Amino acid sequence: MMAKELPPLESLICPLPRTHKDTIVLGHGSGGKMMADLIQETFYPSLANPVLLAGNDAGVVHLADGTALAISTDAHVVSPLIFPGGDIGKLAVCGTVNDVAMVGAKPLYLSASFILEEGLKITVLQLVVQSMKTAAQEAGVEIICGDTKVVAHGEADGIYISTTGVGLLDPSLKIGGAMAKSGDLVILSGTMGDHGIAVLEARGELGFETNLMSDIAPLNHLVSAMLKVSKDIHVLRDPTRGGVASALNEIAKQSGVGIVLEETSLPIQPAVAAACEMLGFDPLYIANEGKLLAIVSQDDAEKVLKVMKQTKYGENATVIGSVEGSPSGRLLLRTRLGSTRVVDVLAGELLPRIC
Amino acid sequence: MMAKELPPLESLICPLPRTHKDTIVLGHGSGGKMMADLIQETFYPSLANPVLLAGNDAGVVHLADGTALAISTDAHVVSPLIFPGGDIGKLAVCGTVNDVAMVGAKPLYLSASFILEEGLKITVLQLVVQSMKTAAQEAGVEIICGDTKVVAHGEADGIYISTTGVGLLDPSLKIGGAMAKSGDLVILSGTMGDHGIAVLEARGELGFETNLMSDIAPLNHLVSAMLKVSKDIHVLRDPTRGGVASALNEIAKQSGVGIVLEETSLPIQPAVAAACEMLGFDPLYIANEGKLLAIVSQDDAEKVLKVMKQTKYGENATVIGSVEGSPSGRLLLRTRLGSTRVVDVLAGELLPRIC
Repeated sequence: MMAKELPPLESLICPLPRTHKDTIVLGHGSGGKMMADLIQETFYPSLANPVLLAGNDAGVVHLADGTALAISTDAHVVSPLIFPGGDIGKLAVCGTVNDVAMVGAKPLYLSASFILEEGLKITVLQLVVQSMKTAAQEAGVEIICGDTKVVAHGEADGIYISTTGVGLLDPSLKIGGAMAKSGDLVILSGTMGDHGIAVLEARGELGFETNLMSDIAPLNHLVSAMLKVSKDIHVLRDPTRGGVASALNEIAKQSGVGIVLEETSLPIQPAVAAACEMLGFDPLYIANEGKLLAIVSQDDAEKVLKVMKQTKYGENATVIGSVEGSPSGRLLLRTRLGSTRVVDVLAGELLPRIC
Repeated sequence: MMAKELPPLESLICPLPRTHKDTIVLGHGSGGKMMADLIQETFYPSLANPVLLAGNDAGVVHLADGTALAISTDAHVVSPLIFPGGDIGKLAVCGTVNDVAMVGAKPLYLSASFILEEGLKITVLQLVVQSMKTAAQEAGVEIICGDTKVVAHGEADGIYISTTGVGLLDPSLKIGGAMAKSGDLVILSGTMGDHGIAVLEARGELGFETNLMSDIAPLNHLVSAMLKVSKDIHVLRDPTRGGVASALNEIAKQSGVGIVLEETSLPIQPAVAAACEMLGFDPLYIANEGKLLAIVSQDDAEKVLKVMKQTKYGENATVIGSVEGSPSGRLLLRTRLGSTRVVDVLAGELLPRIC
C-alpha cells in the first residue's frame, strides 16, 4: 500500500477557513477587519487614488475653479425593508446625507438607483419612495437622478437602493479621520446601538419586545450648527456598520493616536443594554444610523457640546473619551472597575444586512 | 341553485394581468412603456422635481457660484458577469460616463457601490475591479468613493454595481431630449444591437455562434470632439436598454416632434441581423452600450459626422433619419419598400438583465 500523501503544511496552519481568502462571505460586509482586508487586497490594487486612500466617509475633490465637492455612496440592503423608526428609503437618504456631512460639507443632491426583485408589491415601493421624499425634505436635499433595474425572483431580496450624495464643502475645512490630535475629546451625539437592536427586533431575532426605534436621522443640520461655533472640529464620523468601536479604531489608525473611552460615560438605552446582555453583543459594535462621533479640541469641546444639546438629534450628546498620544492605532476602554482593555476591530460578521 | 356571481366588469376588460399593476415584474425594468408608467405612477408622485422631470440621461444642477454639474446614476445587474467584449465592471464605468456625457458634460468623478453575493469568487471580483480601472483610465475619470455590502447566497446574483458620475458642464450648452427641432438630422454613431446580442450569446441563448463582441465603450471623448465643431447639437442620447427605438420615442415625446428613420440607412452587423431574424427581435429595440444618437441641425450634420468618423468609437457613424414637425411624439420608419410604419415604445420586457 502506498503512503498517503500529506496535505500541504500551509493548509494545516491557515488560521481562517480557506474559503475566506478566495470566496466572499458575509463577514466581508461587516465593516470590520475582513472588510478592510477585502478593500486593501481587492479594491485598492486597482482603484487606489489619494481621495479613496484618505478613507473618509466622503471623497473630497476640487474642481478647476476651486469649488470643493464631497461625494459619497452607499448600497443599502437592510432586512426587513420596514422596521420600527424607519425603512430602507429613509436609511438610503439619511445614510448618504450623513456621509457627505461627515467631512463638513453641505449635502445638496442625491442620486438613487434601485434594484427591485420581481414580485415586490408596488405599495411597498411607494411607501419607500415616499419615505425618501420625507427624509430628503428634512435634510434639505434634492434627489435629481435615478435608475431602476428589475431582477428575477430570488436574485435580490425585495429592494436594494444605492444612493450617492454630492455636497459643497468650504475648502478651508480640514475635517477627516487623520486629523485627531492628542488632547482632543471624543463626543458621541447620543445613545449607542438603537438601530441595530431595532432591526434585530423587527427580524424577530430578539425573543422579547423592547419598543425600541431605530435612530435613523439626517445629521447635516446638527453638523452645520457645530461648525458655526468651532473651527477646531478635527474628525466627524457616523458610527454605522461596526458601531462606535469600528469607527474609532479606524480613526485611531488613520491619525496614529490612541483613543481611550470611559465605560461609565457611554450613553446607552436600557433596552439596548438588556438586548446586548442577552445576546452576548458588545453595544460598542452595534450599528447606529442617526449618531455622530466628533473629535474636538479640548478648548472647544464644551461649546460644541452645548450647541449639540440644543438640536433635535444631539440632545443626548456627551463626551465619551479622549485622544492620547499612544498606543498608536489603538482603541482602549477604561472599564467601570478602573482597568483598561483593548477594544479591537471586529473580526467577522456581527449583524448582516443591518443597513 | 343560486346564480353564480359574475366577476366585476373591470377584471374582464383589463388589458394586462392584474399583477402588472400591483406587483413588480421584469417588464418594469425594460426601458419601455411599463418602466415609464412605473416612474410616472410610483416615483414621480413623491420625487418629481424639475431636474428629474427633464428626463435626460443626467440631471443638471447649478451651484450657487454658477458652476453647472451633471450627475447620473445607474444600477448594473447584467448576466452573465463576463461576456465577449466586456464585463459588469466595464459596463458600470462606461454606462455612467456615457450618461454624464450625453448632456454635453465632461465626466470627472465616479462613485461605485457593490452588492456582492456570498459565495462569489474573489478572483471574479478582482477581474471586475481591474476592468473598472482600465475603463476609468480610458475615460479619464477617477473612482473616488465606494461601498461594499454582502448579502447571503440567493439574495443577489454574483455582483451588482451601482455607479454615479459627476461631470462639469459648460452652462451655455442646452443639450437635452426636449431640444430636437423639425429639420434636424438624426445621427447614430455605429451599428445597432451588438451589446444585446453578445450578452445573449454569452448566456447560451442564441443557439449558434456569432463571434460578436459587445460594443461597450466610453463615449465622452467622442462627445467632446463633436462639441468642438458644432454649437448646434440639440440632443445626445446613448440607446442602451430598449435600444434606438426606445431612445428616439422618448425624444420625440420630450420635444413634441416626429422622427422618421430610413430603414435602408440603419447600420447593423450581419451577425446581429441574423440573430434578430432567427429570434424574432427587432434590432431597433436591442441594447447598445457604446453608441450614441445625436440630433443635429441640418447645417452642422456633415461636419459633426466627419469628426465622428475620425474617432475610434464613431467611425461607422451615419445619418439614420430626420426630425419632422409631425406626428408629434411619434417615431416612424420608412421601410425598404417605401411604406411608413410606426415604431412604438416597447410594451413589455425583451431582454432582462442586459445591463
